[in-house]
Order: sequence, then structure tokens, then C-alpha cells
Amino acid sequence: MKISLAQINYHTGNFNSNTQKIIEAIKKAESEKCDLVVFAELSICGYPPRDLLEFNDFIKESLSCVESIAGHCKTIAAIVGGPSFNPNKEGKDLFNSAFFLSDGKIQQVVHKSLLPTYDIFDEYRHFEPNKDFKIIEFKNQKIALTVCEDLWNIDENPMYQKAPMEDLIQYNPDFIINIAASPFSQTQIEKRHQILKANAFKYQLPLFYVNHVGAQTHLIFDGGSCVFNSDGNIFEELNYFEEDQRNFELIDGKLSSETVIKNHPKKEKYDFIEKALVLGIKQYFNKLGFTKAILGLSGGIDSALVTYLASQALGKENVLAVLLPSRYSSEHSINDSLDLVKNLGIKHHIISIEETFNSIENTLEPYFSGTKIGIAEENIQSRSRAILLMALSNKFGYILLNTSNKSELAVGYGTLYGDMCGGLSVIGDLYKTEVFELCDFINRNEEIIPNNILTKPPSAELRPDQKDSDSLPDYKILDEILFSFIEETKGKEEIIAAGFEPELVKRILRMVNMNEWKRWQAPPVLRISQKSFGPGRRVPISGYYPF
Amino acid sequence: MKISLAQINYHTGNFNSNTQKIIEAIKKAESEKCDLVVFAELSICGYPPRDLLEFNDFIKESLSCVESIAGHCKTIAAIVGGPSFNPNKEGKDLFNSAFFLSDGKIQQVVHKSLLPTYDIFDEYRHFEPNKDFKIIEFKNQKIALTVCEDLWNIDENPMYQKAPMEDLIQYNPDFIINIAASPFSQTQIEKRHQILKANAFKYQLPLFYVNHVGAQTHLIFDGGSCVFNSDGNIFEELNYFEEDQRNFELIDGKLSSETVIKNHPKKEKYDFIEKALVLGIKQYFNKLGFTKAILGLSGGIDSALVTYLASQALGKENVLAVLLPSRYSSEHSINDSLDLVKNLGIKHHIISIEETFNSIENTLEPYFSGTKIGIAEENIQSRSRAILLMALSNKFGYILLNTSNKSELAVGYGTLYGDMCGGLSVIGDLYKTEVFELCDFINRNEEIIPNNILTKPPSAELRPDQKDSDSLPDYKILDEILFSFIEETKGKEEIIAAGFEPELVKRILRMVNMNEWKRWQAPPVLRISQKSFGPGRRVPISGYYPF
Repeated sequence: MKISLAQINYHTGNFNSNTQKIIEAIKKAESEKCDLVVFAELSICGYPPRDLLEFNDFIKESLSCVESIAGHCKTIAAIVGGPSFNPNKEGKDLFNSAFFLSDGKIQQVVHKSLLPTYDIFDEYRHFEPNKDFKIIEFKNQKIALTVCEDLWNIDENPMYQKAPMEDLIQYNPDFIINIAASPFSQTQIEKRHQILKANAFKYQLPLFYVNHVGAQTHLIFDGGSCVFNSDGNIFEELNYFEEDQRNFELIDGKLSSETVIKNHPKKEKYDFIEKALVLGIKQYFNKLGFTKAILGLSGGIDSALVTYLASQALGKENVLAVLLPSRYSSEHSINDSLDLVKNLGIKHHIISIEETFNSIENTLEPYFSGTKIGIAEENIQSRSRAILLMALSNKFGYILLNTSNKSELAVGYGTLYGDMCGGLSVIGDLYKTEVFELCDFINRNEEIIPNNILTKPPSAELRPDQKDSDSLPDYKILDEILFSFIEETKGKEEIIAAGFEPELVKRILRMVNMNEWKRWQAPPVLRISQKSFGPGRRVPISGYYPF
Repeated sequence: MKISLAQINYHTGNFNSNTQKIIEAIKKAESEKCDLVVFAELSICGYPPRDLLEFNDFIKESLSCVESIAGHCKTIAAIVGGPSFNPNKEGKDLFNSAFFLSDGKIQQVVHKSLLPTYDIFDEYRHFEPNKDFKIIEFKNQKIALTVCEDLWNIDENPMYQKAPMEDLIQYNPDFIINIAASPFSQTQIEKRHQILKANAFKYQLPLFYVNHVGAQTHLIFDGGSCVFNSDGNIFEELNYFEEDQRNFELIDGKLSSETVIKNHPKKEKYDFIEKALVLGIKQYFNKLGFTKAILGLSGGIDSALVTYLASQALGKENVLAVLLPSRYSSEHSINDSLDLVKNLGIKHHIISIEETFNSIENTLEPYFSGTKIGIAEENIQSRSRAILLMALSNKFGYILLNTSNKSELAVGYGTLYGDMCGGLSVIGDLYKTEVFELCDFINRNEEIIPNNILTKPPSAELRPDQKDSDSLPDYKILDEILFSFIEETKGKEEIIAAGFEPELVKRILRMVNMNEWKRWQAPPVLRISQKSFGPGRRVPISGYYPF
């Protein structure tokens, strides 16, 4: 049996485009004499459709596209993912389904059993878990067709009561297919391979896995669809971060491939993060129909990194960097920024915020007179920059990119409606120490981001001689404590027990908790860790934090 | 048996305060010779705890508080709600539990079966559904103890596979207790009473229902704990929107009460909405430890209404209204605002934005010169106001209240980082037509909100002679279409079929969909409808909308 895996960039809700892409991939596989072509989970409607699933129109349109795709499956079979109505009176109205199409129609529909409802996933919000397990029979082969997390209940501490494969294995299947929507994170690829390997090995079956590629709002899909041998070894991986389609031959349980099998790509952390972020920016713009980005260039490392990533994603001609100096900006900030602009070959403006800042101070003089200069004045500067950037954005059709990093977002070291503005937070899931490491990676062959930017002490430059280190501990320590709290959900005592200074731990956790109100209004953050700020971390604002 | 229902305002995560309040209510019930006192769902930790549940420390602290409360239950029994660890290897790590405390210790723990995971609810994110049903035996009575949605599977189109009462009824219980966390919405009280009535009637048992009161971030809990007779008729309701504790005697299935049974409160829509919003503001400030609000007063109805609600919630001495006129502000806007300020007896400033607006226009002149005046310039005005308000907020410790209404939020008729700023959106769940109706209600006895504000045509006053009706259809039609789309999740065809002009429907739905990016960054919206913007409505930004 010849099986084609189609790894496609879908657009949530764009049924025309998704259907078109699926039909093209079917035709390609057909022309290459494949028996079966496999698409990802919820491929028809894109992932995650979120509450668009609550519209009957959305489900009906999706089902009608499946029907029309089935019409193209006359000499080839296809598996596509999409929502379907639950015919039972009880339970949720929908299933998360895989449609098996052949002979021009929908032959079988199997539903997902294990519905991820944690972190960024909300599947039980919409779908009823399947309890009725069926095998797909096709050309004398029996296929155990599973949807994403259906294979994930193989740990020692399983998230669900049962593993669907335990039912499906009773039918003696010849191989496993898993259609997935597995978003990228730094740890996800390894985890994914572990799970797939464990399944192939446990059931002694070849396994075909098809993932999404692309990005939807804050979620990045890395692709990396793959095939495992029945001994649990990986046979081949499709490309990462781009569309791909490859064919595999399965004869008597033995796999072969038409493609020259390359070495499995080495998964260097920052290589993958860079590619993920570039894809995330590109997709956000493409899917919203925008082409041009604007951002404020402070002379610091964060905005330098985002400028580089934006120029990679959108092309240097589509990025406008704006330097917005104030009385507190150091000369090196401007020179370093100009060096970066030159290195990247992008356009820039230099717009002083002094006039705006002065006028606001002047307007407020009757009220502020006699008060101590402090946060209010610092925020005015940051917001003056935002108002100028947004004006240019509104006037000329740019999307403003946000340049906050995860350490800042965590402790609230940023101005809401100031430097926290932007349509998309590009590096809001990278701790400051990771920002440095990613820049080092980018500069590995040549100095793209000026070394001066990487070596000077971080500063917001909102008052004379200000340094981040005036308000925050050393970033290395800060980031370790933050990681323990955010990614590992360790509490105060546990973190202190790991050897950190108790008062410091308490202070940092208090800062994280107290700044929930700012993060509520932050832009979507491109997710590259296993726990990013945004819909994957849901914390009350008006809570009292016992940590 | 004498049963006390304790309806308490809990604070999420504030274990000390919650435990203290519970112990006081136990002592009160004990002094009044009650046998049993009942507290709400997750009373120990507050509702909703959201992802605080992911911290082991949080669960352990919660369990230790239950233990310490048990120590106070020597001559009285109590039922309190809290999370507990799932001892099984499979499934989620936690249960949503009701602890039955007597003789100084935890006697029994029953777990919630039906876990709401829709709209603002995320319970399956954290909890494993219970499958093991137990009856509580106490003083020769058998109690069917259920947690909130456990009683809700009684519709013709049930959300879950089964109803826990079908198991519990096998034990021949003497009465039902339901501990709940049921947030307010315009339709919720009636729905809640229907469900409780249907259960009491179906199982022919008296039913005691205890709810939360207060607010947590965007969710308002109205209280209204109640008791139903075994014939399905309501016996008594506790107060709405305030703490309350009442005792009931149950002898041979017959109810009596010590309190003089008042007429059940008439639930006038706008009376309840006003009380809900006032409570929502008050709680948001109290729980964050703030006392003072600032807001911009435009002369329009939205900011007038929010100013009134804020002065009701926080006291007139704690509300600062700022008039921020520009060259486009009409004289009546200022006079009407001053009339309101006088009626409410609050402080105000008048701060012209002209200087700020001019300086920004001047700074941008090299870039804007020759372009057509438009949205960019309008947004500069709105953002100039925001920057001045936020400066005062930062300098003097006010929380800025947002004044956007639901119609504006829906179609994106507002400036992100401008009039969309604020720590809390007070009327973001009221359509414009509801804003008018609520103001009429407030003015029912005297002219609190100046009539001029209610009768003049709505305008953003961002360009000469601007009217909302230049950009938007009549609010009555707009709001009907929005309600069909947002609350009823009707699609384009369905709405058009209801008799609305097709091009208008398409235009409005397109506006709603296209402005998801703005709403992502909106403040928390006090929820008073069955579908508010915020965590109850989750829509991709970069989706393509097939509606």
C-alpha cells in the first residue's frame, strides 16, 4: 500500500482555501499512484477553530467541504479531519472526527476519544469523547485510525482513563495512522517522538503521523510529520516549518520511501526557535492580509531581535524601524540602532518624543506640580512612543510588533499601553536569558545584531542612568525562578528549597501575581515554550495569591 | 434537622480570609442550634480558582484549611467545597469536592461528576469527573449531596451522558443539597430556578441550594441561595448581591424557617443589572486593595452611566471624572458632563487635550503631511485622552474605568490604547440599547443622569459634526443583529432569514470578526449576559470567517 502524507498550512475557517489545498494534494498523490493520502486533524477547518465551532453554519460548511472532497476520491482514498455532529441526544453536540473517503464518498467516520483540555487546548469545551472504536478496512489492510491525543495515554501517569489503542488492537490492525494538530514548543518534538515511538513499539505496528504546519494567531505548528517502523524506530520525518508531502510504501509491514532519506534534522534549540518565530510572524501577517510591520527600536536587545526576526519573516522592505529618543536616551542607543538598521538594510525614522512628552508634562503640570517624579513620568514616555507608533501604524497600514520578553511580561516590567502595545508579541515567550542566547545564535557566523547591543547592560532609559538591574535581580537568577514558577508550577517553598534566597523568591512571585492585570491586556504571544502567557495560562486578576 | 445556608463572599486564593468567614458562620449556626451548615462550591479557595489549581501548594493549603475547619465542627456538621487530589493514577490530578465535616473531622468526601466546560467554565481543564456515588448519612437522614452542575443534566438535550441523581436516588435520600458557584447573568436566575424546581419535583425531595455572592475579576455572583419544597415549589430565597445566612428546619420532609418569609424579590431586569455592576466594581477594587476610580467623561451616555455606577460602588468621594475636551468637543458635552458631576457630587478636572494632540500632530507632520485626515488622527485624540488619564491613574493610585459598551466592542468602534483602556470594563456587556434602558431605569424617580445626555445623538466627537450613525446602523437594528450572532450564535443565513437586510448583516458580522484583535487586548468585562466578550468567547484572531 502506498501512502502519501500531506503536511499543509491550513487557515482557520477558510474552507475554500483549505479544501482547495486538500484537493490538490489528493490529485498529486493520485498522479503518483498512491492508494491513500492522509491529512491532519481538523484539516478542513484549521486548528484550533475555538468557538467558531459553536456556529452551526461553520459545522455545516465543514461537512459540505468533506463531501466535496470525497467526490475527488475515486481511485484514491483520503483521510481528512473535521468536526461532525453528535447524533446522540446526550453530551456535547460535536465530535472531532477523521473521515475516511473512498469510492467518491465518506465511507467511515471515526471520532477522537481523548480530548486535550489543558494549557492552550479546550477540546472538551466543544467535543464529546468517542467511546465506540472502529477499524478502517481498506484494500485488505486494517487501519487503526486515531486522532492526535488518542495515542498520548501511554505514560505512567496517564491523563485519561483509557487508551483507545487498547480497543483498536483487538482488531489486529496492520498499521496505525495518527492525524494531529500538535503545536510547536521547545520540548514538544521530543515528547511527540517519544509517544509515537512508544506506540509503534508497544503495538509492534508501523505508524504514520501527520501534523499541521503554519501558525494560527499565537500557535505555531512545526510540521515534522513522520513515520515510525514497527520496531519503534523513526523511519522518516517530513520537513519542519514548511509544507511537505511525501509518499511511503508499506509492503508486508515493511516501509520504503521514494524520497531520498536525509539525515533526521538536528534539532538545535535556537535554530528551531528562530524558525518558529519567523513562521509565526509571517503567518500572522499573511492570514490577516497584512504585509508591513512597524516597531520601535530602543537600542536594546529585545527590539533588535524582533526587528531581525521581522525582516526575516516579511522581507527587509516591509519593516519600518522607528527610533524614538528622549532626553534620557543615550547616544549609543541611537548609534547601535542605526548599525542594526544598516546591517538589516531596513527603513527607519528617527522621531523624538520630547515634544509629546513635554506637552503632556505641561498639560498635567497643575496636577503633578510638587509630586515626586516616578513611574507616572516613566510611563508617559513609554506611552508617547506607543501613540506615535500607533499613529504611523494606523496611517500607513503597518502592524505594530511588540518587543516585550517573557521575563518582563512575568514581573510586569513594562508599560501597559506603552511598550506593551502591538498586534503580536514576537518574543514574549522567550526569557531574557534566552533572548541573549538566540541573538548569539543569530550572530554565530557574522555580526548581524551589533555586539554593542548584546554586551551593554539592559536599560529602559526612562530616567537618568537607569538600569534593569536597579529594579530586577540578575536575569539569570530571575529567569530560573520564573521558570520554576511558570513552566514547572512550583510553589514558593519548593523554589526556596531549591536554594534561592527566600525574600527574593517571595518578591518575584508577588510581582508575577500582581501583574496579571497587565498580561490580561497583552497582545497574543507567539508560543514556543510549554507554558506561555496567554490562553495557555489562566489566572484570576483579583485573586489573592497564597504563594 | 436544622440546616443553615451560608452565602458568603469568598476571595479567590485568600485562604485565611475564606477560612475565617467559614468558621464564623459555623459558630453562628452552632449558636443558633443548627445541626448542619452548608457552604458553596469551592468555598475554601474561591471560584473560579482557574490555573491556581495547577499549583500543588494551592491544593495542599486548601486541604489544610478544610482540616482546620473540621476541628470547629464538634457539635455541628458542615459541608464545604474545595479541591482534592485524585488518588488514582489515571485521569486528571484533582476532584472538585464537597467535604462533609462532623465530630471534628472530615467524615466523607464526594466529588463533582458533571464538569461545566463551556462559556466561562473550564472545569474539565482541572478536574476528573466523579463516577462513584455515595450518600451522606447524618442523624438518621440520608443526604444526596451534589455539586452545582451535577443537578443540571435534566434538560431534554442534556449536556452530559448521565445525571448523578439517578444513582443517588437509589439510596432513598431524604433531601438534596447542592453547593454551587453560579455566576450572574440576565437569564441565569430563571434558568437556575427551573433546574432546581425540576430536580425537587422529579425526585420529590426538598432541595437546599447554596451559591457564592460577590465577584471575582469579571464574574459576578448574585447569591440567591434558595430552598425548594419536595413539590417543586420554591420555599425561600436568600438575599441577592449580599452575604446572607439563614436557618431552615426540616421535619419529616416538611420545611419551616425562622426568618419571616418575605415575598420573593421581583427580578426587574435593570434593577438586577445595576446591582450586579455595582457589586462587580466594588469587588474588583476591594479584592485588589484599591479604593479610587478615575474615568474620562465625554458628555456621552456611556461614560455618564459608568460614572454613576462607580459612585454607587465606591462612594462619590472616590470617583474622579476628567473632562478632556478637544477642538471637536461641543459645548453641550462639557455642560452636560458638569451637570452630571454636580448631580453625583463627585470631583472633576477639565484637561484639554489640545496641547498633546497638537504636539503629536506636529511631531508627525513630516510623515503625515499630504495625507488625508482620517482614523489615525481620530485615534491620536482618543489616545491622548488615555495617556493623560493613565498618568493621573499612575501618579495618584486610581484605577481607570473603561466605558466601552458591548455594541462598540463588538464592531470595533473604539480606539485600542485609547478609549478601550482601563482596568475594568464596566458596561462592556451591555448593548447600547441596554445602556439607554439602564439609564432610564436609574432616572426613574429623578434626573440623575442629565436628560440631555440621554436624548442627544451619540457621537465620538473625533471630527467635526461626527455622529455614530455616520459609521453604524441604528443601534436598535445593530444590537438585534449582534445579539443573534453573539448570544445566539446564529450564522449569516439565519440572521438574514429573520428579516434583516443581507448586506447590512454581512457588513456587521464582518466588523465583529475583524475586530477580534482589539478585543483580545480589552480589559476584563463585567459579565451580565449569557455570552460576554472575554474568556467566555474564544475566537481566533487570524481566522478567516466564513460567516
